[in-house]
Amino acid sequence: MHSEWIYVLDIFGTVIFAITGAVKGVRNRLDFLGVIVFAITVGCAGGMVRDCLIGATPVASFLNTSYLVACIITGVFVFFLAPWIVGRWRIILICDAIGLGVFTALGAEKAMSLGIGPVGQIFAGVIGAVGGGVLRDVFSKEVPAVLTSDFYASASIIGAVIFVILNKLNVQEPINFTITMVFITVLRLCAMHYHIHLPVARMVGEEKRK
Amino acid sequence: MHSEWIYVLDIFGTVIFAITGAVKGVRNRLDFLGVIVFAITVGCAGGMVRDCLIGATPVASFLNTSYLVACIITGVFVFFLAPWIVGRWRIILICDAIGLGVFTALGAEKAMSLGIGPVGQIFAGVIGAVGGGVLRDVFSKEVPAVLTSDFYASASIIGAVIFVILNKLNVQEPINFTITMVFITVLRLCAMHYHIHLPVARMVGEEKRK
Amino acid sequence: MHSEWIYVLDIFGTVIFAITGAVKGVRNRLDFLGVIVFAITVGCAGGMVRDCLIGATPVASFLNTSYLVACIITGVFVFFLAPWIVGRWRIILICDAIGLGVFTALGAEKAMSLGIGPVGQIFAGVIGAVGGGVLRDVFSKEVPAVLTSDFYASASIIGAVIFVILNKLNVQEPINFTITMVFITVLRLCAMHYHIHLPVARMVGEEKRK
Repeated sequence: MHSEWIYVLDIFGTVIFAITGAVKGVRNRLDFLGVIVFAITVGCAGGMVRDCLIGATPVASFLNTSYLVACIITGVFVFFLAPWIVGRWRIILICDAIGLGVFTALGAEKAMSLGIGPVGQIFAGVIGAVGGGVLRDVFSKEVPAVLTSDFYASASIIGAVIFVILNKLNVQEPINFTITMVFITVLRLCAMHYHIHLPVARMVGEEKRK
Repeated sequence: MHSEWIYVLDIFGTVIFAITGAVKGVRNRLDFLGVIVFAITVGCAGGMVRDCLIGATPVASFLNTSYLVACIITGVFVFFLAPWIVGRWRIILICDAIGLGVFTALGAEKAMSLGIGPVGQIFAGVIGAVGGGVLRDVFSKEVPAVLTSDFYASASIIGAVIFVILNKLNVQEPINFTITMVFITVLRLCAMHYHIHLPVARMVGEEKRK
Repeated sequence: MHSEWIYVLDIFGTVIFAITGAVKGVRNRLDFLGVIVFAITVGCAGGMVRDCLIGATPVASFLNTSYLVACIITGVFVFFLAPWIVGRWRIILICDAIGLGVFTALGAEKAMSLGIGPVGQIFAGVIGAVGGGVLRDVFSKEVPAVLTSDFYASASIIGAVIFVILNKLNVQEPINFTITMVFITVLRLCAMHYHIHLPVARMVGEEKRK
């Protein structure tokens, strides 16, 4: 029951991430294939990097067809319906917050199930959740959005830490998974609503002197 | 006999890919080392990423000296002979189409030999063939060429799908390998000759309104 | 005794690399989290990529908390003290040369201990030492500094080759490690002092004609 729900959420998150990737691809004037590649990148690449780092190879998206198929179908839809989707961007952002929660909890749990300690669980959760977006931005010739603005990766990190803490407190896995996921989603939605940002450091000395 | 031929083709493809990498390095005004690194990146890095993802670690280029040596020698040659090579660019492009075919078929076959399913075979073929070029473009601060233009990755993808289909039809491995390789090469050459491009999506709504 | 020293040097190198990453983050006007991510990237990501390629997964920084903690603490310090640190940049550069030596020797030794041959040892040493910096530059939307200027990666490569040669000559591991490390550090410091650069190739023919 638990794992079936997770699987549904996983595919849901993949599709949402793929939508954000494909829309970025359309904006960047990529061709048909490029849009699909961007859908796959954001939908699957974070998980691929995570699986490489935790040693869960061959990576999940190579073994299970549904992730790739979900991304391709999403990419095709977005290619033809981009303006329609962009008009509903608010809904996409809300779903994206859910995806962020799902992927972080999934990554942390996967690392745990392989016997990896707390640090690795946090890393695996965050990289799985934000890695695809970072690659998308690198391919778009942009500084990764998660580094410069928005309370996005921060929500994922805080959530992953909570997953580790709840786990130490012997909270059962399905409950821990749900709490982590919901917490990250709510945190992300609040951050969007209240425009929460992290502080930026003072410019370094030599640049100020100019 | 079969595997000897593949090995020869593999080194051939590596050298050609290394040439395109090194020429890009010279164009970018990289120093001697940078040119060699670009040769190695395009010649070996696609295969490295592929091997990490399918779990074939340590990666092939760490185990077999010849790939690295081939790339270094190529890089040195290109460093001193870049203008001469650029004058023969048409030949390089034809060889590059062969390399694209070889690497796609190699990657798909390698994934298959590790017991990975069809999706993983397609992924492994394509990533091994175009991954090095993507990294080269990222290091050059460019949007990866395969995403914006040219029927390049597309030829690799279609070829990898054909490999999987022929495999399902129980076509013998050496024959399948050869068909896939030749098909991709011919497809790529035709695409170059007839300037085949994939369509680009309409701009998304909000940008049109500006 | 030997391995304790290596561990101390490893953490030292991680902190120094994290400092250079975090300072870059501050310069790029990243937020608090971004600065810490840059510290982690330069401090840990080179080793992560290396571990993936040599098949030592889960990667070391996922298993041992101290690397991550060292990077985070470093990032926090740099965030608040960036001007002070930039004023002491000369010391940082000297420490960075030591870090380059430590990481190259560490990577080569780790590959060797996994039974990987000479080429893999050189690759593993160099990628572990310069990989984090390359990623930092890619995330900053810059052509990786090691490709265009400075005798930095070159020092690492020459050192890794020396490690392999000494190993063939049956020099004992701790001695080999120390020689490699000191050699790279001295080479790097000399290169900085005497402004040693590698040559750049002539522009390719067609660009000259313009």
